[in-house]
Parts: sequence; structure tokens; C-alpha cells
Amino acid sequence: MFQSFDVTARPDQGPPRLQALRAELDREALDGFLVPRADAHQGEYVAPRDDRLAWLTGFTGSAGFCAALSHVAGVFIDGRYRTQVKQQVADVYTPVPWPEVQLHDWLKDQLPDGGRVGFDPWLHATGQIADLRRKLDGSGIMLVDCENLVDRIWEDQPAPPAERVIAHPEAYAGESAADKCGRLAKGLREAGQEAALITLPDSIMWLLNIRGSDIPRNPVAHGFAILHSDARVDLFMDPSKLEGLADHLGAGVTVHPPAGFLNAVGALNGAVAVDRDSLPQIVAETLGDRLQPTGDPCALPKACKNAAEIEGSAAAHLRDGAAVVELLAWLDDQAPGSITEIDVVKQLETLRRRDDRLRDISFDTISGTGANGAVIHYRVTVETDTVLQDGDLLVLDSGGQYLDGTTDITRTIAIGAPGAEERAAFTRVLQGMIAISRLRWPQGLAGRDIEAIGRMPLWLAGQDFNHGLGHGVGAYLSVHEGPQRLSRASAVPLQPGMILSNEPGYYREGAFGIRIENLIVAQKAPALPGGDAERDMLDWRTLTFVPIDRRLIDADMLSREERDWLNAYHAQVAQKIRPMISPAAQAWLDVATAAI
Amino acid sequence: MFQSFDVTARPDQGPPRLQALRAELDREALDGFLVPRADAHQGEYVAPRDDRLAWLTGFTGSAGFCAALSHVAGVFIDGRYRTQVKQQVADVYTPVPWPEVQLHDWLKDQLPDGGRVGFDPWLHATGQIADLRRKLDGSGIMLVDCENLVDRIWEDQPAPPAERVIAHPEAYAGESAADKCGRLAKGLREAGQEAALITLPDSIMWLLNIRGSDIPRNPVAHGFAILHSDARVDLFMDPSKLEGLADHLGAGVTVHPPAGFLNAVGALNGAVAVDRDSLPQIVAETLGDRLQPTGDPCALPKACKNAAEIEGSAAAHLRDGAAVVELLAWLDDQAPGSITEIDVVKQLETLRRRDDRLRDISFDTISGTGANGAVIHYRVTVETDTVLQDGDLLVLDSGGQYLDGTTDITRTIAIGAPGAEERAAFTRVLQGMIAISRLRWPQGLAGRDIEAIGRMPLWLAGQDFNHGLGHGVGAYLSVHEGPQRLSRASAVPLQPGMILSNEPGYYREGAFGIRIENLIVAQKAPALPGGDAERDMLDWRTLTFVPIDRRLIDADMLSREERDWLNAYHAQVAQKIRPMISPAAQAWLDVATAAI
Repeated sequence: MFQSFDVTARPDQGPPRLQALRAELDREALDGFLVPRADAHQGEYVAPRDDRLAWLTGFTGSAGFCAALSHVAGVFIDGRYRTQVKQQVADVYTPVPWPEVQLHDWLKDQLPDGGRVGFDPWLHATGQIADLRRKLDGSGIMLVDCENLVDRIWEDQPAPPAERVIAHPEAYAGESAADKCGRLAKGLREAGQEAALITLPDSIMWLLNIRGSDIPRNPVAHGFAILHSDARVDLFMDPSKLEGLADHLGAGVTVHPPAGFLNAVGALNGAVAVDRDSLPQIVAETLGDRLQPTGDPCALPKACKNAAEIEGSAAAHLRDGAAVVELLAWLDDQAPGSITEIDVVKQLETLRRRDDRLRDISFDTISGTGANGAVIHYRVTVETDTVLQDGDLLVLDSGGQYLDGTTDITRTIAIGAPGAEERAAFTRVLQGMIAISRLRWPQGLAGRDIEAIGRMPLWLAGQDFNHGLGHGVGAYLSVHEGPQRLSRASAVPLQPGMILSNEPGYYREGAFGIRIENLIVAQKAPALPGGDAERDMLDWRTLTFVPIDRRLIDADMLSREERDWLNAYHAQVAQKIRPMISPAAQAWLDVATAAI
Repeated sequence: MFQSFDVTARPDQGPPRLQALRAELDREALDGFLVPRADAHQGEYVAPRDDRLAWLTGFTGSAGFCAALSHVAGVFIDGRYRTQVKQQVADVYTPVPWPEVQLHDWLKDQLPDGGRVGFDPWLHATGQIADLRRKLDGSGIMLVDCENLVDRIWEDQPAPPAERVIAHPEAYAGESAADKCGRLAKGLREAGQEAALITLPDSIMWLLNIRGSDIPRNPVAHGFAILHSDARVDLFMDPSKLEGLADHLGAGVTVHPPAGFLNAVGALNGAVAVDRDSLPQIVAETLGDRLQPTGDPCALPKACKNAAEIEGSAAAHLRDGAAVVELLAWLDDQAPGSITEIDVVKQLETLRRRDDRLRDISFDTISGTGANGAVIHYRVTVETDTVLQDGDLLVLDSGGQYLDGTTDITRTIAIGAPGAEERAAFTRVLQGMIAISRLRWPQGLAGRDIEAIGRMPLWLAGQDFNHGLGHGVGAYLSVHEGPQRLSRASAVPLQPGMILSNEPGYYREGAFGIRIENLIVAQKAPALPGGDAERDMLDWRTLTFVPIDRRLIDADMLSREERDWLNAYHAQVAQKIRPMISPAAQAWLDVATAAI
């Protein structure tokens, strides 16, 4: 199993570790030290060595940080983790609701004028430090960069990950690494920049057509890269990870030990492009006024998938869809009351593993029944594991990392006979999901310009949900990829080739949850008879093909267009998936995809 | 008649006037002079004295400006006016497509390093000058404030308007001027500001519960005001306009001649709140570092109408609706081919004038039939006046300034038998208009977050329109009022009491136009059974009650909810308007509001 169901929180270890950290504060004459969740690459997942926040405090959420002062240790957590943090940390830690309470305001309340707060300049982005310093301006509180004090007291800290890197074949990548480096270097020359620093692992993987296994769920290897304006690349990565890849990397890529990165940055002469939201503060200081915050040049090209990447993703989605259909057929065979959330996760992973291109799951499967379905980022453990009961809705959000693509799918399944309120809410969520799927829109609009369309059916009933409508997804890369998002916060214009999730939901705390998620890819929309000839418009191609539970749909609520979309979608599911599944699953699929 | 149909463009006068202006440039050792459309109050309409752009160039559009250099004179106009400008200006003027070409780029192309461009510091907002100077930085081109050179050569320039100001009774205003000054002054004290400068005429009118007639279509008087943090107001306005108003203004308001404004600003000691997008540059320079760009403190309170203002607007809309219904009934009695666009405008104004609370129309009526309907800001003149022919669609966009409210309504009417394409497009526009009307949305969203919902039906057919979905409207004030807008450009959260237009359209150049517009006011939405208790949501109350042409609706395209909305709306129209109209119009209304 990729996934484990262990209870990882160990509140009892927090107090002695905090005590040890405070001894280091005294030694350094500091009043506090910041412990972020992030590593030097600002990714969503971290290697065990970098899981300093969990090691120190016990808190295992995917976002948050600790400000450990000599008299108080604040654990800053957002709305998703208010309950979890109380179970995971000892009472020497003080949960702080964030972002309602901002770090600078909290520090001003807690520290005297002249307070000194240490931080590890590798673990904080330069934009974040600049912002925090600006907000502390006038308070007398100083941010002081220093050695990592957690690493100093963490005696059995794991070694940095050193997994082997593999080549990502051009058949999947669709463009050679040399071509990518060439076109990005051209952009640097046009901008008058000597080089770009690439510090996000998925950008390095994309640029060099390689994939790694340094952290769970993400096919990336840790490293840093300098892309020069003549298209040469200096790659700073443990050479043992790259054995046998010299030919694949080619003459344009020179591998160096990671320790040489800062010196190489220091040796650059001209303007250097960086992403200030992810570049470590220490690298920014090394650059000084050569820094140009024009962003990671890989970000947009990576987001706009080429034909090979889209076809690879589509193929991975069909095989993944076949596994999910087998799971759903199996699930309907299990009597209510007979299996648990973990049983579902295990069966699904078993079915996915039959595919020889599967390399990992793309995140820990969310399998939440009844009230657990209302916990948006629910992670089932042996302690929370719950039996699926008659009348429950099961929210099942999962995905796979395949050599040819990354998948992410949510289906909500009726266990036994669903209630009327659940069906009405499910149908509204479906209407929003269909509205986005059917959409056509003028080129140039961003996620924020169209997101309301996926929420409107819920709004009309006085309902809504507290997460974005969709996130970007990589091509055998990060399951959460920027900059594209279907969110009120995203002003990045949607472009052909961007893969996004379309996942409206509805959550009633303590009762039930609903989410329906397909991945979709933006494409140029064909001209329509009677349409405006002068307008370039985009629409979506759907990648995910798995039935949507008809038992949860109140067909009377659907418009003709919505019903037509659903029936056409289910016809496509049947046509594409039927040849790939067992006879038993075929029989199930025929019922599940019948027209309504 | 309020409205005239004269052809006002006189291209022949442009060349000698430009020659005279260039003589002044030589005299002042300038290389150019900027002639904006705006006056010192940055309003949409200007008094004849301030119509410098039209006087100089011949161009009469409501937006644009001229950069008159010694060797070239650019007339910068946006997409709406590309055709019009060619007919209105002589060829000594060069039309410049704006904002595609930006003034600073054009100046850099046209002028040598060290070029000096003059501008009247009363006519440009300080934000605009700062922005332009920043963009010219490094070019060596200097912006030089100077006397208005157009005024110097305009021998028969009209005098400043000096119309009488009237009191706006508290029964309509809903709050005394003293109370408004008191609550705004409290905000100034809380922000540590000594005063606020109010330079937008509609803000002054709103704050002091007065209305004026200095410029057509807008019930405002020109002036400037200083609101002090102790709630006193210094009003700089020609005292002859204010005769008899001493009691109404009260002891808290001191009237001064306009010439004293700058000296009074100079005498302020502390921080002063201003709106940098409308404050004249010369006033900003007088303030220096006391300037705080926190905006016009009247803007948001003015936008959020109170109960008296909403009820006044609603009543004005019913009487206005009765006049429009009489017009529509009359129009259906005229045979195709028998009347013109101007006949419709005259008849409509005659019907509106029967109401003794009408003070003006709220803008020149747009009456465009056939291809003229596709010209979004069409103004009919004796030269363009066109006969309404069988098969035409007539776009009729008009409004009234009543003592109790401002109206703005568009209806598109079938003349004879409409074509299938016209009906399909009309139905899509109607679907967008209904979607916005029916909407409920979480409090905190802005116009940009919901605008797509009004365009989606057109998008799905490959169609769209090139204007915003809606604009703010005042309460017996400006028909275009900020900051609220239903537009991709508006990030201002919608709040209860904001009146907006809901006016999707569709325009096929050279063929036909369609627009349907109601005014709507945001309000707290009632709780719904099954809705989320923790969510505060808003919805709309409709103010406009006039039938939507059923002959243009393809009922088969409507969903059940859309049809229900339309029938319920028409039932309300019948119930509210029938008692107010003639028997002939009643007979027409009964047919026009029958259920579909």
C-alpha cells in the first residue's frame, strides 16, 4: 500500500522538544524561531526530513506554521484544521486561527520592542519575508536569519531523500528538454535577462523531462537549476540520483552537487529572473539587485499542455476510470454495514495497482462516509475508520500518478437509500458541475471570471461550499499545479492545454458531504453557426469518464440541456470504459450509465 | 423638448482653431497641449463652457481627448467612436485608437527628448497626471501645468453655468444633511483626518441634500466642498445659485465664492482625505503631503440607498413605466414604414413630461432601428433619422430624472414580423437578464464575481457583447454612478441598497441590435428552508416594470424557471402599471403581459 492509516499525531513528544528548542533560543539570544511547514522548495508535500512542523508540534496538516517564542508557541492553522490541531498538539502549544490572526500582529502582541525572531532563510520565500518585514516595520521586532534550530535538536532527523531519477520519455513529454530550454532561453534574452533560477521541483522536472521520487505522491526530485540565456542548464542535485541519465540530460545540462548552488548564483553577472513567491530568502540575498521578480519561466509553459501530454493524460484517465468503475461495481455488491472507509481505500488502491504504469497515488485517498464526508480534507486512520451505513453518502476523492498522466477524481456514492435533502443537494452540485463542463467563454477570461457559474445552482437554494471550484493539475506531475485555477482568487487567463479540476461540493457539518470532480482541459472552441466570427472562444474537453451516481439525481430538477449533457456523458463513459473492465463491472456499468 | 436632434459636428471649424492653438503653443514655448473631455469635476457630461474637446476638434463623443502638438494633433477615441470621429473631425486631426495606443507611448513617438507638453491642472485628476508622469519617466518629456490655452483662444466661450439649486427634501433623501455630515465626520476623526475634499458634484448634492441644473441630464450644480472632521462644511459655489437655501443648508454649511477654494485648502493643517481619481492636480499640489488618497467618503454611503431613496426610486419607476407602456402601446399602433426613430423619441418625451415630478430626461434617448440598433451609443440626428421598417428591431434606451428617482430602461421592440435569428438572440439576451434577476449570492462578492452569469446563454451560442452588464444608478442623481458596477472590472463588494442596471445585449454590426435593461436594487435575501444558516446572502428587488416583447421570445428555449420568472414578472407589471394608464394602453398591456 502507498497509503497508511496510522495515527501519526504524538502530542506527548511536543513538550520536551519545545523545551529543547527554547534552550537553543537562549543560546542564540533569540526571542523566537519560525518553523514553517514548507521545505526549501515550497511544495505542498515534504520529505520526512523536512517535516519539522509535525516533528516539533505533532500537527500533521498540510498547511500552517509554528512561531515558537520563549514564553508562548503559536501554531497557526487555517479553518480546515481547527479541530484536528486540538487533537494533535499538547497544551504547551497555542492554536492561533489563521489568516484571521496575522503573524505580524501576533508577534507585536507577544514580543517587546526590540524582539529578535530567528528564521531559516532556506525555508522562507523572499516575498514572504519582505512582506513580513514590511508589516513589522516600526514595531522594533527584527527578523534574524540563522541556522535551523529544529535541525540542531532533531537527533535522528532522516537524511535528505536520494531516490533515483528517471527519464520522462519524449513520447509523453511531447517536446524535448533541449527545445524547452531553447524557447525559454529566447524569452530570457528578449527580456535582457542572463539567467533564470528554477527552484520549484516540478518546474525542474518539466524543463528537463525527468521525474523523481523524493517525496510521496509527487514524482519530483529535490534540486535547484540555473537556466542560462544561452539555453545551458546547471542542475544542482545529488549526482547519485542521476546515475545513467547523462545521455538523456545531454551536453546542455551540467550536474553539480547541491552545495554549489549559492556560489553559482553569486557568480551570475546580469539580471536574473526569479519567482519571489518561492525563491528562498537566502538565494534572493545572494542575488541582491540582480534579482528580477518576473516569475518562474516554466510555470505557464508547463501549465499549457501540448498534444502528447493531453493524449497521455486522457489515456491515463481511461485506465484510471476503469479501475474506479471496478471499485464502484464492487462497492455496490457490499451490503451496507459490512465494510469501512479503509476497506474502500484498500480495494481502490489494489485495483489501481493492476496498471503497470501506476507509480504512486496522487494524494492520500479521501474516503469519508456520513459526517466524515463533510470534513473537506478528511484523512481516514485506524481511529476514525467508520462503517458505511444505509443512508450514508460516501465521498471518495482519489487519483493516481501514471507515467503518462496524473488523475484526480471524486465521486459521491449512495450507500443504501439516500435521503431527499441529500439528493436535492447532490443534484444542485451536479448542475454546477455540468454548467462548467458545458461552458464556452471568450478567450482572455480567468478562473475568477467564470467560477460563479459552478456555484449558482447552490446559491439559488441558499447554499454554497468553502473551497475553490477547481485547481490546476500537472501531466505526471503535481496534482495541485499553478498558476491556473477555477477560483475567485485567480486572475490568470485560461489558455488551451490547461488541465483543471471541476469539483463543486456541498458539506453539512455533522451530517453529510458531497463532491463531484472531473478533470477537464481547456481548448479552442469550434466555431458555431450564427456565432460571432470575430470572437475566439474556449471550451473544455473532459478527461474523466466514470459514472455519476444516478440514485442521487433528482431528474425533475434538471433542465433539458443538463439532462442531455448527463446522458451524453454517460454514453461516452459506457463506450470508452466498457471494453476495459470485467464482465461483472460491465453489467454494473450498463445500469449505471443508462439514460435518465 | 429636452433632447435635440441637431447635427453638432462642424469639421470645418477645426483647422482654424487648431492653428490658433498652435500660435499659443509657440508663445508659451510648448510642444503640445492636452485637451480632455472632462471638466474640473471629472463628470460624464459637461457644461457648454467646458466642452473644449468638441469646440476644438468637432468630436462630440462622451469620452476621449486631444493631444495637440505643433506638428500633429491626435484625437484619442475608444472603440465606440471609431466611425463617428471620422465624420466629425477635419483631416488636420489624427484619430488614435485608444486605449490600444497609450498617450505616453504616442508622445514618446511624436516628441523629441526634452519635449514640453502643457496641461490645465484643473482638468486632470492627480492620479492621472501621476500615472502619466511615471510612464513618461526617462523619456525626457515634461508635463507642464499652465493656463488653459483653449480658453484663451475661445472668444465666445459661454459663461460658467449658474442655475438655481433646489432643496432635496428629507422625505426623498431619507436622512438629513446634518446627519450625513455627522457620520462622515466621525469616520474622518477615526481615520485621524482633519477634513475631506469633495469635488464630485453628485457627492456634494448627496451630502447636502440639494440638487442643481448646471449641466444637462444631471441634477447637479458645480462646486467644491470641504467636509471638516467637526462636521462643518465649507461650500465653494457661486452664492447666486444658492439664494433662499440658507435655512435648508443650516448653520453647519458656510458658502464661499468658488475662487476661495484653493486658499481654503492651503489653510488646512492635518491629513486630508481625497479621491485621487477625481481630485484636480492643482488641488493635490496645494495639499502636498497632507493628501491621503482614501477616496471620496460620500461614494459608498451615496451608493447604498436608504429605505426612502429606494421607495422613491420604486415610485418613480412605476410612473416612468406607465409612460413607457403608453409609448409601447402607441408604437404598436403605428404601421411599419410610417414613423421614424425621432418620432419615437418625441412621443416618449411627451409622455414622460406628463408627470409633474419629471425634471429632465436622464440621458439622450437612444432610438435605433435596424442597423442603427447595433451602434451601442447611437444618438439619432436629423441626418441619421431612419424609418422603422417591417422586420426591424428597435432598441429604445431612455430614462427620466424625477424628483424622487432616476430611471434607465431599455426595451427592444419588434417592428412587424421579426426574423428567427433575431428571436433566438433576443431570447438568449433575455435568459442572461433573467439569470441575473433571479440570482442570490453570498455577501461580499463584487460585480466581477457574478457578471458571467448574465453572459453565459450568449457564450453557449458563440456570442457576446462589448459592454458591461450593468452600472450603478443614483437616487435623483447620476444615471451612471460609482463605485458599484456589474462588470469584470469592478471589485467593489455589492451591498444592500445599491441600485444597478441589468442590461445584457447583442449587436450584429450592419444588421440589428438587442438590449434589455431593468434597474435592480441589492437587498438582504430572506433565509430559505434548507439553506445554510451561517451564510448571509443578497438578492435583487426589481424596480423596472414594463413588458418585455413576447413576440421576440422563443419560448421553447426557456427553462421552466426562466418561464416562471417571466410570467411572474409580467403579472407584476400588469398589476402595478394597469391602474396608471389609459384604457387603450390597458388593452395593449393585457396582451403584452399574458403568460407564455
